[in-house]
Amino acid sequence: MSRCMIVTLLASMLVGGHVNASDSAVGRDDAVPGFSPQAASTQLKTEEALFDLLDAKSTARHFRYLTEEPHQAGSERNRRLAEYTRDRFLEYGLEDVQLLEYEVLLPFPVEVKVWMLEPVAYQASLQEDGYEVDKDSWSSDVGPVYLGMSASGDVTADVIYANSGNPADYDWLLSQGIDPKGKIAIVRYSMPYSYRGFKAWEAQKRGVKALLIYSDPAEDGYRKGEVFPNGPWGPESHIQRGAITYAFIVPGDPLTPGRPSIEGETRIKEDEATSIPNIIAVPMSWRDAKPILENLGGPVAPHSWQGGLPFTYHTGAGPAKVRVKVEMDDGRRSIQVVTGTIRGSEEPEKLVILGNHRDAWVYGAVDPSSGSATLLETARVLGELARSGHRPRRTLVLASWDAEEWHLTGSTEWGEHFADELGKNAIAYLNVDSSTSGPDLAVSAVASLNPLLESVARDVIDPNTRRNLFETWRRRTEADPRQSSPARLVDNDLGSGSDYTVFLNFLGTPIASLSFDGPYGVYHSQYDNFYWMTHFGDPGFRYMTAMVEVWGRLALRLANAEIYPFDYSGYATTVQAFLDSLTDIPDVEQKLDLTVASNAVEAWRQEAARLQLLVSQTLDKNPPTSPDRFSELNQILLRVERQFLHPEGIPGRPWFKHLLYAPRYTYAAMSLPGVREAAEAQDWELASQQLELLIERFERVAELMRQAQTLVPAE
Amino acid sequence: MSRCMIVTLLASMLVGGHVNASDSAVGRDDAVPGFSPQAASTQLKTEEALFDLLDAKSTARHFRYLTEEPHQAGSERNRRLAEYTRDRFLEYGLEDVQLLEYEVLLPFPVEVKVWMLEPVAYQASLQEDGYEVDKDSWSSDVGPVYLGMSASGDVTADVIYANSGNPADYDWLLSQGIDPKGKIAIVRYSMPYSYRGFKAWEAQKRGVKALLIYSDPAEDGYRKGEVFPNGPWGPESHIQRGAITYAFIVPGDPLTPGRPSIEGETRIKEDEATSIPNIIAVPMSWRDAKPILENLGGPVAPHSWQGGLPFTYHTGAGPAKVRVKVEMDDGRRSIQVVTGTIRGSEEPEKLVILGNHRDAWVYGAVDPSSGSATLLETARVLGELARSGHRPRRTLVLASWDAEEWHLTGSTEWGEHFADELGKNAIAYLNVDSSTSGPDLAVSAVASLNPLLESVARDVIDPNTRRNLFETWRRRTEADPRQSSPARLVDNDLGSGSDYTVFLNFLGTPIASLSFDGPYGVYHSQYDNFYWMTHFGDPGFRYMTAMVEVWGRLALRLANAEIYPFDYSGYATTVQAFLDSLTDIPDVEQKLDLTVASNAVEAWRQEAARLQLLVSQTLDKNPPTSPDRFSELNQILLRVERQFLHPEGIPGRPWFKHLLYAPRYTYAAMSLPGVREAAEAQDWELASQQLELLIERFERVAELMRQAQTLVPAE
Repeated sequence: MSRCMIVTLLASMLVGGHVNASDSAVGRDDAVPGFSPQAASTQLKTEEALFDLLDAKSTARHFRYLTEEPHQAGSERNRRLAEYTRDRFLEYGLEDVQLLEYEVLLPFPVEVKVWMLEPVAYQASLQEDGYEVDKDSWSSDVGPVYLGMSASGDVTADVIYANSGNPADYDWLLSQGIDPKGKIAIVRYSMPYSYRGFKAWEAQKRGVKALLIYSDPAEDGYRKGEVFPNGPWGPESHIQRGAITYAFIVPGDPLTPGRPSIEGETRIKEDEATSIPNIIAVPMSWRDAKPILENLGGPVAPHSWQGGLPFTYHTGAGPAKVRVKVEMDDGRRSIQVVTGTIRGSEEPEKLVILGNHRDAWVYGAVDPSSGSATLLETARVLGELARSGHRPRRTLVLASWDAEEWHLTGSTEWGEHFADELGKNAIAYLNVDSSTSGPDLAVSAVASLNPLLESVARDVIDPNTRRNLFETWRRRTEADPRQSSPARLVDNDLGSGSDYTVFLNFLGTPIASLSFDGPYGVYHSQYDNFYWMTHFGDPGFRYMTAMVEVWGRLALRLANAEIYPFDYSGYATTVQAFLDSLTDIPDVEQKLDLTVASNAVEAWRQEAARLQLLVSQTLDKNPPTSPDRFSELNQILLRVERQFLHPEGIPGRPWFKHLLYAPRYTYAAMSLPGVREAAEAQDWELASQQLELLIERFERVAELMRQAQTLVPAE
Repeated sequence: MSRCMIVTLLASMLVGGHVNASDSAVGRDDAVPGFSPQAASTQLKTEEALFDLLDAKSTARHFRYLTEEPHQAGSERNRRLAEYTRDRFLEYGLEDVQLLEYEVLLPFPVEVKVWMLEPVAYQASLQEDGYEVDKDSWSSDVGPVYLGMSASGDVTADVIYANSGNPADYDWLLSQGIDPKGKIAIVRYSMPYSYRGFKAWEAQKRGVKALLIYSDPAEDGYRKGEVFPNGPWGPESHIQRGAITYAFIVPGDPLTPGRPSIEGETRIKEDEATSIPNIIAVPMSWRDAKPILENLGGPVAPHSWQGGLPFTYHTGAGPAKVRVKVEMDDGRRSIQVVTGTIRGSEEPEKLVILGNHRDAWVYGAVDPSSGSATLLETARVLGELARSGHRPRRTLVLASWDAEEWHLTGSTEWGEHFADELGKNAIAYLNVDSSTSGPDLAVSAVASLNPLLESVARDVIDPNTRRNLFETWRRRTEADPRQSSPARLVDNDLGSGSDYTVFLNFLGTPIASLSFDGPYGVYHSQYDNFYWMTHFGDPGFRYMTAMVEVWGRLALRLANAEIYPFDYSGYATTVQAFLDSLTDIPDVEQKLDLTVASNAVEAWRQEAARLQLLVSQTLDKNPPTSPDRFSELNQILLRVERQFLHPEGIPGRPWFKHLLYAPRYTYAAMSLPGVREAAEAQDWELASQQLELLIERFERVAELMRQAQTLVPAE
């Protein structure tokens, strides 16, 4: 489900580059953060051994098997792939291999139909064309096209075109005297806030009777470039499937919010579940949408609403009148999470978790099978390393999630299931969703991980450029005219939309999420398949395999570092930028005194910088004598991210417990959500309360930094 | 032919606002420039009388007659309209009414055809659809569609798509290994440098065998808004006709450069004429162009080359193979210029000239009949004013030009014909080409006229907003996000493309050009007709009539001012900005010393400011005692613009004699052309010589300013 490019773009628009890696003592260009020179040398030997084990042919074999058939969550094929994953984990020597099942709400479609009744009778095909060159699109039955968690119903109404279905779009329509209430709205998938569930949420609030979401050729089709099967962009009949769950309210199985969907847990009623939409929604290709859009009268839509179809877009309402019929079953279905470990030699209870989801909308070549192939290959390589004497100091957990496409279900249920243990022992969660749709490295993470991520990017060579990934990224962004501010490799504005959510927002674990991106117009369509990947996304499987190296090195550095490589002074600088960005909200400077908060963050930054200087000196000068000489210090460092959890969550969204981040509308990021949302709503009392909570956390973290300073061995 | 919006946009991009009207003593907001308070009061009474004579119904009657039939230059109908104009001038009491004929090169088409031979056989219709609601498009035979001055020939070749056909476009194709030589190029009408003759010139230089120019829907069709007959934008079959004469080399009849095409003047041979293209060129609708563009292979065209048609644009060459056949006759045809005067009461030899062209490509509702209706109505109103005791002090000349659409022919021949008298006595030329395509006032002029033009704009009320035109313009531009720099009402970056060219560039007369603009996608198509104007451009003829007021007030102020209202200090400030903009050319700062020139302009500015202060004091304090007390001063002021003429013209273009301005490629402006073109070509010796010429002129003007100071009556 991840749309890293969107998040990256939004982030660079919203915050710009405030953090510079060289600010931080942990981020020395020539060092491996958290390692003494001697330990670093051992670590790099381990990583060289890892590099030697990489095998693109092995990645390719996994990928071929994973993308052979459609494998959506709840399907027999996806269970088969869970077993395949379990079997590979076992074959590769992983320990504690488990196949866990969760029983969750996963309604499948019975009937999905759209007809235009007036001014011309017409039934939408809701099907994607086959191309002879591509056996997957040509020969398979991929089942009915639908949006997961759509309501059931049968409605008829005049149509309005509401651009992207954002609040401002409906506001404009109302300003023209066009009331969305009781209408069927057709909207396009587009930036910003492109999560389709947010469109459904907004349409539901506006009284829209049914929502049609189509792919405009200006956004992922011919206006972008060559279309499938001649290029990577979406052809005329491609349809973006997906769920519309209100996962930005609460993710995971809608019937067990905050609790795992295991036997014995009670389920709430569907009408009590806040993440279940009450609106009928159907996805469409532009070919199916065209006759409807062509038959809208009313005002000419604003210039920015015009898309790539060959006519002037109007808003309606009507004369196009449409009937939409959706019937979903009330299915509760079983999903499978597969986990395995490389048990740590010194601190086996401490966990570095590597996760990726397995379920796809159809074949899911990019999303998620590129990541699943990377996961299986990472399991093989790490297993082999452990067997050959490179067992990590701490435990690595590899996880294959399920039903991410629905409500981030598998990872959320698993996180809720093992919350206690994870809360205590998870060092970091490293997410790879779609590992590869092209050659452009994209990284998002909490800011404490920036230097570590940059160090890894400097040590991995890009298969195309033959330069390291960091340098490749630097040259690419410098050549990009859209990049105005000094950009960072790591995007620290974290939204949601992938499996790191439970770890960050519910458990307070540091997270990172990684992918290689490229031109990709077939997202969630049946054309996201083997043919697409081998012709456009990653011919030769070189980037899928490079991701094994990135992921593996990153996990091993976290698992082996003598001192956890968290850059908390850089983190403070980022949080200072979050605070500064609050002043973009009207009246904030008059109504909120940000000075105390700002001073508290600055105190945290200074204490952290002091700590990191001590750490750096200690690591540089004192080779480790015993494996646990830093254990007390590490224990403190592990507690920092957790300080930002609030047991009651942010206002209105109790599941989202992290005070620094929440998704705005799934994909889009929102920092300091409690203060920000209250300020945007001009609720200054609530905003001040939320600001107080933050200040308290900043002070706690500064205190932890001071404590940690006393625990750095002096000699 | 005028495309004021283009010029305005380019100007605001190129120079930004350097000149502020309030800089100038002549530009006091509350005054009528050039008038003492007492004379101003009389003048404003005259203008009120003018206002009372305005009659939108009379404008409408002229307009209905002018647009009844197609009337291109050289046609019987256009001769009939010349006679109609002459008869109205006589009816309205104009004096010295003349219908002059010039015999010029005006080849008409015998056959124009375009076929696609491969990969699909297809013949382009080269016709525009009729719409039942509109009798003009439905019932008339408008003749074959062609580009004036296309070469004749019959060629077959593979096609390339070359974006807008600019030098950079061909450079990009060459960088991809695509050689335009021997190919047929298809290009779109577009910004910048949109003059089709420049596209032909560039294509000819690149060895292209034939040029197809089509209207992309992203530029003037459905992507802009509602299309005809439902809106003002171009429908699928609309075709932009026009000439491709290299009028930026030399305008006027190609066979008599610099001389009038009258009996007894010798003609040069066609193959000696530098403004005659040697390439075959045909205009197309997007509907005719689509099959060709759809059948191009080769690389995907860059993002900025993609247009509004529903596929990914490629560059070719081929597989589309096209045959283009054009046969033009070698016609020399007669064109008619009609003139009449309101003879001045005090200084009848001094002339203020109001001109507009009459010839159209088809019905020419906007271009030029809106202006022609305005001209006839202005004749009626000014004639009536003179009869009722408001005869101007100096002579007004009203002119109806012909064959502007070909090579600015009529005005150029007339200007060359009467060069001696005009050189001595023309105070200003006031051009109205298309007077009305909407409600947005657009003014371009030499900078000395800025305050006068602003004073008029402040005294005319906008029919829609009920605010004055200046205030209406100010609010509109402030609301426009594309206007970044403080914009000016008057655009002082003068290109060409309308009838002011001979007056400015050949005769050194101050010029202004006026229009009301709006959304207009049917330029030079048969849909630029009565239906279009009465439904979209100017229902009620209110702006066409408002232009009578603007034009009339402006002409009368120039004709009646006690002291010519030329703002020469503001002019100097503008020229200083022209000088500054030279430094944008690579190496200019190293290779050219602009200090001397800059100091000379500053000296001019200071002397002019001193003069204008004296003039202002004199006018404010000393009511005029005799009509000719300022005649010596005025005689000096009249010589200023002429100082910038150089008898040999600018390098390579001897007809263009003005050293401050030349058209870059007809529409686009170029200031200080001699220096600029030499610097762009890195010919520093020539650039220095041209700079010397300028400095000499700046010094002469400063000296004239000093002389003028001594002629301002002290008491």
